[in-house]
Order: sequence, then structure tokens, then C-alpha cells
Amino acid sequence: MKKNTLRDEKRVVMAKQLWQVLRMNGGNDETSFAKTSYVQKQILSLTKPIKDKAITEMYSKQPPTKAIRIADLGCSSSEKNSLIVIFDLIQTMDNIRRRFKQDPKEYQIYLNDLPGNDFNTLFGSITNFEDRLLEQIGDDFGHCFVNGVPGSFYGRIFPTNTMNFVHSSSSLHWLSQVPENIIENQKRNIYMSRASPPSVLKAYYEQFEKDFLKFLHCRAMEMVDGGKMVLTLLGRHNNQYCYAKESSYLFELLSNVLNDMVSEGNIDEAKLNTFNIAAYTPSPLELEFLVKKEGSFNVNLVHVFQVSWDWNDYKFDSTLDNTSDQYDFTTCMRSVLEPLIIAHFGQEIVDEVFERYREKARVSMAEENNVLTNVAISLTRIPRVRG
Amino acid sequence: MKKNTLRDEKRVVMAKQLWQVLRMNGGNDETSFAKTSYVQKQILSLTKPIKDKAITEMYSKQPPTKAIRIADLGCSSSEKNSLIVIFDLIQTMDNIRRRFKQDPKEYQIYLNDLPGNDFNTLFGSITNFEDRLLEQIGDDFGHCFVNGVPGSFYGRIFPTNTMNFVHSSSSLHWLSQVPENIIENQKRNIYMSRASPPSVLKAYYEQFEKDFLKFLHCRAMEMVDGGKMVLTLLGRHNNQYCYAKESSYLFELLSNVLNDMVSEGNIDEAKLNTFNIAAYTPSPLELEFLVKKEGSFNVNLVHVFQVSWDWNDYKFDSTLDNTSDQYDFTTCMRSVLEPLIIAHFGQEIVDEVFERYREKARVSMAEENNVLTNVAISLTRIPRVRG
Repeated sequence: MKKNTLRDEKRVVMAKQLWQVLRMNGGNDETSFAKTSYVQKQILSLTKPIKDKAITEMYSKQPPTKAIRIADLGCSSSEKNSLIVIFDLIQTMDNIRRRFKQDPKEYQIYLNDLPGNDFNTLFGSITNFEDRLLEQIGDDFGHCFVNGVPGSFYGRIFPTNTMNFVHSSSSLHWLSQVPENIIENQKRNIYMSRASPPSVLKAYYEQFEKDFLKFLHCRAMEMVDGGKMVLTLLGRHNNQYCYAKESSYLFELLSNVLNDMVSEGNIDEAKLNTFNIAAYTPSPLELEFLVKKEGSFNVNLVHVFQVSWDWNDYKFDSTLDNTSDQYDFTTCMRSVLEPLIIAHFGQEIVDEVFERYREKARVSMAEENNVLTNVAISLTRIPRVRG
Repeated sequence: MKKNTLRDEKRVVMAKQLWQVLRMNGGNDETSFAKTSYVQKQILSLTKPIKDKAITEMYSKQPPTKAIRIADLGCSSSEKNSLIVIFDLIQTMDNIRRRFKQDPKEYQIYLNDLPGNDFNTLFGSITNFEDRLLEQIGDDFGHCFVNGVPGSFYGRIFPTNTMNFVHSSSSLHWLSQVPENIIENQKRNIYMSRASPPSVLKAYYEQFEKDFLKFLHCRAMEMVDGGKMVLTLLGRHNNQYCYAKESSYLFELLSNVLNDMVSEGNIDEAKLNTFNIAAYTPSPLELEFLVKKEGSFNVNLVHVFQVSWDWNDYKFDSTLDNTSDQYDFTTCMRSVLEPLIIAHFGQEIVDEVFERYREKARVSMAEENNVLTNVAISLTRIPRVRG
């Protein structure tokens, strides 16, 4: 019964075709995600200790005898992010293996994203990735097999009881669809804003609740007993208000730009009235509440942290490589938001939208220290009750 | 020891960068593989009974309790081929499951090709594929999870002891590299030809032997005891001569074109002298011999069959859909050979090469009934000896 419900919902999602547009820009051109994912990289770096702890616990408690299956959900086409996470996880496990004097292990890696993601670019970097594993970990580290998994993580994507470790970063704040029945009350707002009525804030939360519970339910079926999951997403400290500048301001700037363009007659008002961003930035308490409600996972840790918008806060970062020199907040946001703008408003206005966005971001950053708030949560699959 | 050897060889293959060019044309444009793979589709259709028999035996002998893992190796970007094979396999298994009154099964499908393959196009059709499974097999058929596997099948691509059924069609005649030390003796030949000296024919066979043994060795490690493998590749009836018109003539026509162009001064002779096609078309006895030599598989069946070059032999085929109306032998061969031509001779000459190829193919087909000979072989993984 439940299975059919999942399927029906999956079809609804498909019908809305959100996944046709919700994707990072592909390829390696100037505005592509691969070169503009510095913020996401910072987030991954800040959550490394959480992932290390989880994978160490998992490995130490029950040293694996078969291939270790690891997934990165919402991997995007950026080799600089998804494969770095996988590399770190394998390195951590290989260190423990050597301490325990065990045989080399086999790792099966599943990189998931929506079917519209640029998997070609991602796969193009896998050769280098395997070379790096051999060089840095050593010829006896084992075998690593990398697969691509096209599909929505709000549905089933893996067989039952097979996954050991699941990771997702900077993806789960995206909803499966725009909440229903909000257009009438949203007018020229494009997201949860100060001006949104309570019914809109409620609809956003309810869509998140529905999506996140479904996510947990699917992963609960797919993960082995004792398997670990570390999720990081845009969020907020504040438990009281769904609207919070600390995480919504990047959308608010876009809203200001689009409203300016409507006022100047460059965009049709009716067009703006039907544009809404399908994202939600939860608080730590909301996440914990939903995990407990779903019931298949224990919460090991919840961590809230912030990353700055401002390049000046990073430019002395000694770990930066050359590519990261090109980091620029607006370019970074453009690679995420552009597909949504083009799908709704068309290609013509997109350059102007992001020129204006850049100017607004510059003014705002000069006035205050803008941040993106993130929430990371580390979970363990509760062992199934055997009948 | 063996593992390191495999790895070293893998690096050699990478270094030669054959896999950068050995790929079907991607996308959905006029010359793309997706629209021009009619011959390959015919081959798949003719081997359907062999695959059905193998999967029925596998399922009936040991009804699976966990997810059934199936791979298609060298899947190319054509939804019309790879996914049709997978669909048929799942349908066959689901029929048996219903007869046995078992619970719905989970299928994990691995579509493999070289990293340069157009996985984006392939993944773009997976949504339709799942819909078709639900519609045609029924909502209770189970779950099907499709993954992409970028990598060379002449190396390890799956964990040990995990795969139930492995399929490959129209791929294994491609070698991992051009045989070494043949250039001096090949002159203006581009493949095994009537004019090739015995040393060249020997070098081609030896490269095939090395590659095919390595293929079998890797699959032997990856497949479960009793797992089945059905392989179809270009081949020949004749056991005596490595050169056989029945399978090499498509390359001979290309050789004639390139030689004409050298004679007319359109291509530099030295450039032609270093161009050789990395393929081998084995006889059934050669395949059986190598399977026995490797030692991990039993041969269930070897089948030799021919498909015609000529569209006139197919145009009353009642199973044809609209896309197939566009079948044309030269366009079909171009999608396979073009990347090789461009990589060696450059983009400029490619249109002229295939205009001349088309004319030569037309003249030849008017004179005789040209065919492609294929060999299909069905294997079972011999159970491992437990110590």
C-alpha cells in the first residue's frame, strides 16, 4: 500500500517537471557549477569532522566483510566536491583498516542527482579520482567502483538493506515541488519572506515535512542496520519563525531584483506572481522532530554553523587552489538559480537579472556581514526488529 | 600480485587514451547512435532467445532472495538498445516469479560504458523506462534501480561476488588498444586485410586473447556462483583465417576510401600508415578455447548468425517503429567510426570520407549481399571451490 503511494507521489513530482530545471549548470564553462562551488566546498570542509566521526564509528563497531556501499545524494557535476567527500571517507576507513590490520576493502560509490544533472562532466573526472586514490592511499587500498544514480532522492533509488553510509550536502533544502495553493497569497514574493502571510509559511513547512519524511522513509528501507547518514542543508538557528534572513537573504535579493524589473516594465507582473522557489531552510529542532517522527534513525548530533558570503573572508585560506581564486558569490548563486530563472522567465532576461543581483549583493555586503546558515545532522539506522 | 598487474595494464590502456575516442557519437542529432543503431538492434533481437534461456535457467535454479544485479557492458547512449534488453530480461524474470507465486523482486541495473560515452542522453530516457515497466509489467513488478558505470570492461568495474547476470552486445570486438609493433608491417592497411602479413594477423589475435582473457578474469571475480553471461560480438564462421570478409568488409571499405584519398593527395600517406583499427572478429572456436583457457565459466551455447547490411532486407519488418525508418548502413557505421577518424585525421575530412564510403557501400550492395557475422556465447560462472 505504502509502495503505491510512494510511486503515485513520484509521478506527481515528475508531472510537475521540477527536476527538469532543478539542476546545477553543467559543463566547465565560466558560469558552471564546477568552478563556482566554493561556498559548497567550504560547507563540506566544515562538516568533515562530523563525517569522519560517523564513518569511524560505523567501521569500528562492525568491521565490514563485504563491499562498503556509500552514496552521495545530490552530488551535482562538481568533481571538486562530491569526489573530495568520497576520497576523505575512503581515506578515513583505510586508516582504520590498517590499524586493525585487515585486508584491503572494496568500496562501491553511488553518486546520485536528478537525471538532468551533467553526469558526463562528473564521469570525466573519475579517471583522475582513481589515480589519486592509488597515489595517496597506496596500491593496497583495495578497489573503488564509482556509479552514477540518476533519480530523485525523494523516491527509492537503491535496493532494500544495502547502503552502509549516505551523505548529502547542500541539496536537501530543495523541495520536490513548490508548495501547493500558495500562488494566490504570495503575489510578488518568490519565497518565504517577511511579507508572506502565515498560510504561505505553513504551506512551505508542510511541503518540507512531507518531503523530508519521505526522504527518511526511503533511506530507512535502503540502509543496513547501524548504517550512518550525514546530511547538511541550508537552515536557520531560529526555531520560532519560518522566515529568517540568515538563510533566506540570497532569495530576498533575487526577489528585489525581479520586483525592480517588474516596476520598470521589464518583466510582466503576472509572470512574477507565479514564480516561487521550491526550497525550505529548517531549524535544528524541526529536523530532530521529523527524524523522531519517522522513527527509523537515532540522532547522534545536530550542528548549526555559518559560512560568509564574502570572498574577503576567505582569500587568505591557505588550502585554496587556483580554481577557487575565481570564487564570486553572485557567480556561485547564479549557477544554482539560473536554471530556475530561465525555465520560468526565459533566456533573455537572465544576464540582466544577475548584473542587478551582483550590484545588490555588493551594496549589501559592504553594509553587513551576510552569511548562509547551515544545519548538519548525523544519524544512525536503528536495527530492524526481526520477527 | 595479479591485482597489481591488472592495474598496471589499466594504466597502460589509459595512457594510450583509446577510450577518449572509442565511443559512439552522443546526443540525439541526425548522426547520433540513438537514431542509427538499427543493425545493433537487429542483433539484440536475434539473440533474445539465448538471453531468455540463460536468465530463465538462472532464476529457476536458484530463485533470488535479494536484489538481482544485472549489467549491460558497452551499453552506449542508445535507450533503444540497452534499455530494451534490460526490459526484456526483467519481463522474463517477472513472468517466472508470478508462476512461482513469489514476492515482487528488486532489480539493480548497471549500464556500463567508457567514461567518454554520452551518459546524459542515456539517463534522460530512464524516466520513460520506469514508466514503461510499471505500465507493461504492472504496479507489483517490484523495483528497478538503474545506475551508470563509467569505466573499461577490461578492468574491474564491480565488487567481488555481486553480479547475477552480465550482458554485452556489439562491444567486445573492440580491443583495449591497437596491437603493438604492427605499424611497420601494416603500411596502408588499417585492419587485418588480405594484404596484411602473418605477423600482423598474429598480433591482432594476441591482443584479442589478452583482452578477452582479462575480461573473463574480471567478470569471474565479480559474478556470483551460477551467474550467467551472454556475450555477442562481431565475429566470423571461418576458423582458419583471421582475415574474413564476412566481418571485416566494413573496415575494408573504409580502407579503400582512405587509400583513394591518399592517392588523390587529400590525406598524407604517413598519416594513413599510422592508422589502425583496434578490433578483432573471433571465430566461435577461438571464443570457446579462450573461455576454457581462463577456466571460470562453462560454455552453454555458441551461436553464429548474420545480419544484412541492406535496408531492403528489413523494410517490411513489422516491428519497426518510426525512428528505424531512418536506418541507413553508412550513417550507422559513421556513428561508430567517426570518432576514430576525427581523432586521427581531424574534423576536416570526415564528411568527405563518409560520402565516399556511402558510394562504395552502395556499389558493393548492388553487386552482392553483404553481411555482418556475429558470434553469441552463453556462459555460466562455475561455483568457486570453498576452502
